Amino acid sequence: MSPAARNVVHPGHWAYDRDRMSLIEQKFAKLGTDHAPGQEVRHAGDAADTPLRGEPLPGVPVDFSHGDVNETAFGPTPGTLEEFVEGVHRGGPQAYTEYRGGAELRDRLAEKLAAFTGRPVSSQRELIVTPGTQGALFLAIGATVAAGDRVAIVRPDYFANRKLVEFLGAEIAPVRLDYLGHTDRAGLDLDQLEDVFKSGVGTFLFSNPNNPTGVIYSPAEIARIAELATKYGVAVIVDELYSRLLYSGQTYTHLRAAAVDTDKIVTIMGPSKTESLSGYRLGVAFGAPHLIDRMEKLQAIVSLRAPGYSQAVLRGWFEEPRGWIAERTAQHQAIRDDLMTIFRNVPGLAIRTPEAGSYLFPRLPALSLPLHAFVRALRVQAAVTVTPGTEFSPDATDSIRLNFSQNHTAAVQAVERIAQMIARYRTE
Amino acid sequence: MSPAARNVVHPGHWAYDRDRMSLIEQKFAKLGTDHAPGQEVRHAGDAADTPLRGEPLPGVPVDFSHGDVNETAFGPTPGTLEEFVEGVHRGGPQAYTEYRGGAELRDRLAEKLAAFTGRPVSSQRELIVTPGTQGALFLAIGATVAAGDRVAIVRPDYFANRKLVEFLGAEIAPVRLDYLGHTDRAGLDLDQLEDVFKSGVGTFLFSNPNNPTGVIYSPAEIARIAELATKYGVAVIVDELYSRLLYSGQTYTHLRAAAVDTDKIVTIMGPSKTESLSGYRLGVAFGAPHLIDRMEKLQAIVSLRAPGYSQAVLRGWFEEPRGWIAERTAQHQAIRDDLMTIFRNVPGLAIRTPEAGSYLFPRLPALSLPLHAFVRALRVQAAVTVTPGTEFSPDATDSIRLNFSQNHTAAVQAVERIAQMIARYRTE
Repeated sequence: MSPAARNVVHPGHWAYDRDRMSLIEQKFAKLGTDHAPGQEVRHAGDAADTPLRGEPLPGVPVDFSHGDVNETAFGPTPGTLEEFVEGVHRGGPQAYTEYRGGAELRDRLAEKLAAFTGRPVSSQRELIVTPGTQGALFLAIGATVAAGDRVAIVRPDYFANRKLVEFLGAEIAPVRLDYLGHTDRAGLDLDQLEDVFKSGVGTFLFSNPNNPTGVIYSPAEIARIAELATKYGVAVIVDELYSRLLYSGQTYTHLRAAAVDTDKIVTIMGPSKTESLSGYRLGVAFGAPHLIDRMEKLQAIVSLRAPGYSQAVLRGWFEEPRGWIAERTAQHQAIRDDLMTIFRNVPGLAIRTPEAGSYLFPRLPALSLPLHAFVRALRVQAAVTVTPGTEFSPDATDSIRLNFSQNHTAAVQAVERIAQMIARYRTE
Repeated sequence: MSPAARNVVHPGHWAYDRDRMSLIEQKFAKLGTDHAPGQEVRHAGDAADTPLRGEPLPGVPVDFSHGDVNETAFGPTPGTLEEFVEGVHRGGPQAYTEYRGGAELRDRLAEKLAAFTGRPVSSQRELIVTPGTQGALFLAIGATVAAGDRVAIVRPDYFANRKLVEFLGAEIAPVRLDYLGHTDRAGLDLDQLEDVFKSGVGTFLFSNPNNPTGVIYSPAEIARIAELATKYGVAVIVDELYSRLLYSGQTYTHLRAAAVDTDKIVTIMGPSKTESLSGYRLGVAFGAPHLIDRMEKLQAIVSLRAPGYSQAVLRGWFEEPRGWIAERTAQHQAIRDDLMTIFRNVPGLAIRTPEAGSYLFPRLPALSLPLHAFVRALRVQAAVTVTPGTEFSPDATDSIRLNFSQNHTAAVQAVERIAQMIARYRTE
């Protein structure tokens, strides 16, 4: 039936339908994933549009869009698969846990998370197990943000933060992170933070260590965030996904321990990165009981629960073999240092040494082609996949993110190719 | 700081904060999970309020709120754990698939789902792998429904359907299913369906076989649903989770095969029930490419992807050992028949024989205590867990749902205890 025919038969309906579709189309237009990490396979043929210079640079392909969890790089924590298999053999009780996660598991986790973050966690009231930290973020935002609200978001920060807020029909109040301008603190613009809090923001969402820059918020910055959140009644969701991978000499401050008033704080963590357990889809959120309650209600309709058998894997979290985290950290630090040496030698490139996690976020010198075209050229000519900075901030049109949790040798060679590609395409 | 003090310091802010909280509180007030299947552990102590009659009825505890996936009842498909372990050993590519699921897996699944449903499926454009069928439902509703829309929902139907619609700020247009009034068709009120379609509903969501009643929509009902959806431009999401577990003599019609116009149809399935793979959190949705695209965008911010290693398990779906589904179906049919015999002998109880799936939905005779109190009494006195009918329809205040995918002997004895409990509490 043609639109015209429908219009005759049901006056008004077609118009209604078009309005509705345009509303939901608008909603999804903001949710682009084409340039998100892991989706690069979608661009297989599209580099033909880019005018490329020079010959391909041979080498082992490296996908810096996420960490390499193969055993040739950084495989999962020892004993993980065994925990999973034991979970499967426990059968029904492991498959069908409470929506917020198995009770015994939550008891184990609450104790470990309390010790790690320096403040008690109630396993009954303050903790939920989620499908990945991505799941935890979605649930936490969904639990605090309604349509029409305003949410403070750091620029740059994790790419999904903005999309989560927009999907819920809320508005973003950006706060600058001048990570290149400081070495003694992350560089959050605290005056701007107060301004946006004052202007009626209800929720503040940020990652610490920051993704994509790898910088750690200083004790003073965290104290000030806590103070302002209390003063203005703002809920704070802090993504601490990388807080176990701290390089030597670094101090980390958990917001939940530093804050006097924790009744609107939710902390998010997970074993997907440092521990390389991303394939099991596990995360946790802990904090304000009324927010955890809402998150469970939302989880019940979004995915019911974190995968039951996978939950068994979390039993071993924070119980890695002695020295395992220290060794893994040292390995990452060695890769970081080698890659920093290469990037520091690229004229016109600006970069800050990451203090935690496994991301580098270099700001490139002026290039003769736009960022997305350069990212494609890296993939096509240099077998290197990176994530464009614009995923993390609309301003970051000259930056790329690399997850350097990779095979050491391959990563070094790949970054050498990036340096050659920058030389090839730079304007001067 | 007290609310009053805050009000002085930041005039207007506190009032804003209260309004915002009340909006989101309202949103979550509708999302109750206390009586949802699997959450009964929350009611451990609350039966003290119920005046109980008589002595406890001893027996093996049975939790009819979900299927029993232990090997003493209905364990996972043979070979499942082996597929998972192989997936873990594939490493990175299995952990980090595209958001819509690994490409090779989608190729395998598309072929099998096309053969099963009788219409081609494009693995590239028309299929997404999700965290359980619950995840698929959320994504499908999220892809079609915006705040202010109206969504047609069957009563009774799967308990989360209503909650999903309400969470997105949409309104429910209920459509009656007179399942007790028919044996030759499900009993959908097709005139009412046309009325609500005509009134401007944008999406229709229903399960076939129906959860909780186990009835199958007839070919004529499906044809009429397809016809009305086309006529009024309504998107249709059909949850076919139980469509592989059909009892002897039953005919099943896939909407996507029956419809002339499929550009707004999404079909949902998964291996959580018949195949007992719920602990792996896997589901699929297939259909209209523009809706699958939106679902992937939404998945990217909700949970990134279905658990990577779990996805490997889906390789074996629809490739069960010869005769395995037939045997599993026969075992369920035998349990169904024994439980039906017991229920048919309870005076005043009304029940329809389920044609597919593993649910019974008896309407109980008048009892001397409210439904939720009786459900608690069953748990406390008879060691039997059932789900109150009000989870599936606000009208179903006299019905209970049982998932009879249980150990055969234990299920029969548990339903005998239910019959005794009905006799104990009935009014006359």
